[in-house]
Amino acid sequence: MGPHPAVAAIRLAVRRVLHDVLTDLTDLPRTPSAGPTVAPPRAASGTQPVVLVACSGGADSMALASALAFEAPKLGIRAGGITIDHGLQPGSDLRAAEVVSRMTALRLDPVESVAVRVGRDGGPEAAARDARYAALDEAADRLGAAAVLLGHTRDDQAETVLLGLARGSGIRSLSGMAEVSGGPGRTKRYRRPFLHIDRQTARKACMVQSLPVWDDPHNIDPAYTRSRLRHEGLPALEKALGKGVVEALARTAQLSRDDADALDAWAADAEAGVRDEDGRLECAKLYALPPAVRRRVLRRAVVAAGSPAGSLFARHIEEVDRLITGWRGQGAINLPGRVEAQRQGGRLVIRQG
Amino acid sequence: MGPHPAVAAIRLAVRRVLHDVLTDLTDLPRTPSAGPTVAPPRAASGTQPVVLVACSGGADSMALASALAFEAPKLGIRAGGITIDHGLQPGSDLRAAEVVSRMTALRLDPVESVAVRVGRDGGPEAAARDARYAALDEAADRLGAAAVLLGHTRDDQAETVLLGLARGSGIRSLSGMAEVSGGPGRTKRYRRPFLHIDRQTARKACMVQSLPVWDDPHNIDPAYTRSRLRHEGLPALEKALGKGVVEALARTAQLSRDDADALDAWAADAEAGVRDEDGRLECAKLYALPPAVRRRVLRRAVVAAGSPAGSLFARHIEEVDRLITGWRGQGAINLPGRVEAQRQGGRLVIRQG
Repeated sequence: MGPHPAVAAIRLAVRRVLHDVLTDLTDLPRTPSAGPTVAPPRAASGTQPVVLVACSGGADSMALASALAFEAPKLGIRAGGITIDHGLQPGSDLRAAEVVSRMTALRLDPVESVAVRVGRDGGPEAAARDARYAALDEAADRLGAAAVLLGHTRDDQAETVLLGLARGSGIRSLSGMAEVSGGPGRTKRYRRPFLHIDRQTARKACMVQSLPVWDDPHNIDPAYTRSRLRHEGLPALEKALGKGVVEALARTAQLSRDDADALDAWAADAEAGVRDEDGRLECAKLYALPPAVRRRVLRRAVVAAGSPAGSLFARHIEEVDRLITGWRGQGAINLPGRVEAQRQGGRLVIRQG
Repeated sequence: MGPHPAVAAIRLAVRRVLHDVLTDLTDLPRTPSAGPTVAPPRAASGTQPVVLVACSGGADSMALASALAFEAPKLGIRAGGITIDHGLQPGSDLRAAEVVSRMTALRLDPVESVAVRVGRDGGPEAAARDARYAALDEAADRLGAAAVLLGHTRDDQAETVLLGLARGSGIRSLSGMAEVSGGPGRTKRYRRPFLHIDRQTARKACMVQSLPVWDDPHNIDPAYTRSRLRHEGLPALEKALGKGVVEALARTAQLSRDDADALDAWAADAEAGVRDEDGRLECAKLYALPPAVRRRVLRRAVVAAGSPAGSLFARHIEEVDRLITGWRGQGAINLPGRVEAQRQGGRLVIRQG
């Protein structure tokens, strides 16, 4: 008898990602015309790669840790785990020690707890996230990890899309979390094997494997936007629109990501063509671009002039765009980071004041 | 003393659209380098254009009718109104007659009630919409209307975006309703002046002008998806994410529409380049395209082969795409409309069976 379907699902998801990690390590060529699948890659003996799981002790990351512990040895990979002690609640150090012992019980090795100090920049959720990724990057570098697995599920992805939707800043913010994303100097450090697995499956997999899980009280604290979304917003949306909403949101993320990537590439390409010999943006050439491409070219130029990308909203770019599409002699436009945009003699001048 | 701010807002919105209608009629050139705004266009005497409002008697379209009645004469436009009797409730004919008298009281002329027979295709909401637009098209043709104004508000737009999101079929379905859209043979027949006006403003404008409004019981009937969304889904989302959600959704619509247009244009352009001398799609060339463009090229090809666009979902195109990106000798893929996609000798063959 095989494993429970939930356990089979999480293991398959992890196995696929580990294959990808090994493929990237050994740099096998991947061509469109490849014939039948070649034998799965396996790490060469003597050079055992390390893959870490970031584990909070919650159901999602405990399920991920268990699947990594099961699959990694079969592929010649050494599996380890890191838990982050954010120090935000009394006894968080004991909690972290408990998670370490649970990961050790899964035979992960090395296993570490890393204490971080959470700042205040960008609000409590962003500050905790920044501290967490900095610590994970440091641990991954120190342990020479080929990848760090993160336990975000399809439900997390759906929530992230809705959070992006609430910003109203376009399809990049609808594209949620990537299956593969980079850390400093590493373009493919982080992997999210569970983006197509729902939270219920992860929880079920823990249950049938008798893995104890810890429910973070933050996750049900209505002071947090994501928690309100999870427990009120998304259920109400499902009630109105039907049960497929989470899946639809996750698919929207993937499609939006690809669309945003393609349009960014177009804008990067178009940018060279709309500058004059002195490198200044020509309004008539900008006007001829499709609006979606023109706004991206303008955004690139404003960021290049020193405006912080995180403070630059769609409405800023719309105002700059009106210098091109709705010209009636407007004055200079003030943008975040003391950047100014101005139309002068058919050219767009964007510079820091 | 000027009009109430709500009344000023709806009139400004209508005035702008009427200017656009006249500009399109007189075909004034619009260039990016246009200097200070030229005098507003005015219809030449003797050729008085007609603009109609589609009016259900609800607050949104009554506000629109009142603003049209006020603004049109100042621009030399004749303003008329149409109400559709869907015949779905007992007494709907009396209701329509009542709306006619209210439009007449606003001095709209011509004013008509048009009775339609609602079919069953695509569900009750889609069938009613199809019947309604067919009747509006017929009336606009018969009365020689330059445009038909529709009362959809920013709230309607937000709901439409969420309905599109629930389909999970990509950014085209997130782009909501267009400010300008076509009818048969007319590319710019329908105009939606209120897409940036919220429902509350329209209602307020009716109140302060003492205009009676009719609340369609369908709008609060939880049997309708849109009604559930309006009264439960969207309020819960606002509670979780904050009051700016409706505005963010409406902005998402506009940005998504522009993005989808640009990518469609790219795909149309790319399609010629990926065909061999016999017009067959070459897999290697398709592979080289960005995924977002490749999927659109594939979609175009499948629709061109006879698959009905409305039955073709993202997952169908993903499966065809795997013939290019995940080729392992798969067989033919069956698509809606008895269309088959098959990879043969490095070419993609898509045809109706």
